[in-house]
Amino acid sequence: MLTLTDSEIEKQYFMKDAIKDTLALFNKLEQEQIIVEHRTVIEMPNTHNAMLYMPCLDLKEKLGTIKVISIFPDNPKVNLSTTQGKILITELETGQHKAIIDASYLTRLRTGALSGIATDYLSRKDSRVLGVIGTGGMAFEQVLGILEVRNIEHIYLFNRTFEKAQLFKEKLQDFGINIEISVTQDVQEVVQHSDIINCATRSNEAVFNAKDLKEGTHINGVGSYQPSMREIDINAIKKSSKIVFDDIGGAQTEAGEFIQAEKEGHFSFDSTYGDLQQLVLHKINGREDDTETTIFKSVGAAHFDLAVGIGVFKKLFS
Amino acid sequence: MLTLTDSEIEKQYFMKDAIKDTLALFNKLEQEQIIVEHRTVIEMPNTHNAMLYMPCLDLKEKLGTIKVISIFPDNPKVNLSTTQGKILITELETGQHKAIIDASYLTRLRTGALSGIATDYLSRKDSRVLGVIGTGGMAFEQVLGILEVRNIEHIYLFNRTFEKAQLFKEKLQDFGINIEISVTQDVQEVVQHSDIINCATRSNEAVFNAKDLKEGTHINGVGSYQPSMREIDINAIKKSSKIVFDDIGGAQTEAGEFIQAEKEGHFSFDSTYGDLQQLVLHKINGREDDTETTIFKSVGAAHFDLAVGIGVFKKLFS
Repeated sequence: MLTLTDSEIEKQYFMKDAIKDTLALFNKLEQEQIIVEHRTVIEMPNTHNAMLYMPCLDLKEKLGTIKVISIFPDNPKVNLSTTQGKILITELETGQHKAIIDASYLTRLRTGALSGIATDYLSRKDSRVLGVIGTGGMAFEQVLGILEVRNIEHIYLFNRTFEKAQLFKEKLQDFGINIEISVTQDVQEVVQHSDIINCATRSNEAVFNAKDLKEGTHINGVGSYQPSMREIDINAIKKSSKIVFDDIGGAQTEAGEFIQAEKEGHFSFDSTYGDLQQLVLHKINGREDDTETTIFKSVGAAHFDLAVGIGVFKKLFS
Repeated sequence: MLTLTDSEIEKQYFMKDAIKDTLALFNKLEQEQIIVEHRTVIEMPNTHNAMLYMPCLDLKEKLGTIKVISIFPDNPKVNLSTTQGKILITELETGQHKAIIDASYLTRLRTGALSGIATDYLSRKDSRVLGVIGTGGMAFEQVLGILEVRNIEHIYLFNRTFEKAQLFKEKLQDFGINIEISVTQDVQEVVQHSDIINCATRSNEAVFNAKDLKEGTHINGVGSYQPSMREIDINAIKKSSKIVFDDIGGAQTEAGEFIQAEKEGHFSFDSTYGDLQQLVLHKINGREDDTETTIFKSVGAAHFDLAVGIGVFKKLFS
């Protein structure tokens, strides 16, 4: 049984790979070569802890994965990550279990890849300024996803704790990102300058004011993964011409601000514009003019983990 | 991440351990310290292959497991086992994934432990003769389970392919089992001599005739795990005073001869005698006299895998 740690994967499997493998996934979904089962969630009594199990098969590659994630919200108190994941990879010719690999980096990477892909279809081609709201665990690969698809010249960073945004700037620079980076304590400054805004927070209220948006901005939201959470301003939802989800079914039970917007009558999942698969397969249009406000909202799904899990396995072991 | 192969586990974790850990499980089930989720099954289109995912948590030990099994019926053609399993073990204080261990030996071992425990409660104390019908993959640990709870002096072996029964006899002897062992091509001879009969076949019809049973025989059935399968004679079901299942819910959808017996009006899951947990916790009686015919039927369940998976982990790594 092969094993890979996060740091081993980080050295060998990159954003470019994740985007390529995720784009290939959409074709396989269309050709009905992917079987996704509903995930199993076990909540542990008298705690906020939960275990999630997400199985999925790729009939084309003849490889299956299950991602097992533990979500333990009190972990940061003991200097551990809130979520810890593993992906088990099974070869489907003979059912042999081949590898177990860390899933933390891959989960962040595939989420960044999804935002990158969506941004490629939905943002203005001449987008030059990226605004990052929330520089926590998911943010780094969000930036990498955007940089992969647009020629960004300036990044604005905002975080509730200012020092963390400064450290995040250093991390980007250490990675070799040679772009002007401004750290600000004023979220309005971020929004007023940005062509693309990425939100990755655990906020329970909107993290920006839609009034501050430039014309033609594209927004990615990967936070608010529970009904009680909000990060995208409901007024931004109201003014958007195209709202695209990675997984509409998942979003209906998890994407807090959209659930709220639907309750308030400003939005409807039933008549939503579409999902990322439709966008990539050209069943729905990407951006059509420079004035549209567009939103991509991601909540994740087992098949996205499958795409990168199998991608790593094929890149490293085939 | 710790890993263990089947052969590493076989050298360090034995039938005695599996029985002890399984008995402890029943107490934990009673104290509601075990969370079992319904298993997920993915059948692969245009094949007989399937993937099974069985998650379970032990809140007392603060350890969780998921067993992932692939069932590929054509595997023997390429000299591979039909089923291949892994158990992922997660520590539930902080959600860290600790080990991934082979599950083939453990699945056989826990099935043998279940038959052993049931036999301890249901067979005559003076049982001396064990009959084994079907000497395939599951049979070896079935014998070990019985030997752990009764002073067996003679074992009769029957298998559809006679040579395999002879090889099985050698395997038992190589293991150090110093008991008279008869290999026969006549299943009637097995049944007429046996105090305890263990069936572990993939038969689609009864593998013995109930007329040949001695008075007071106990029967264990671990085959017929699909509705189309039969191994225990329906007339044995009819004449039994106590029928005990490892998991009644599972048996209702899997235990072929009982599903058939219910259809024919000879048996009812609703009014069945009980399950192994009730037996071990003395909620129902074990054998009450020497004339009863008794049956234990096992189909398996995630919490039995949990018991031995955690047992191995604690024995080897704590």
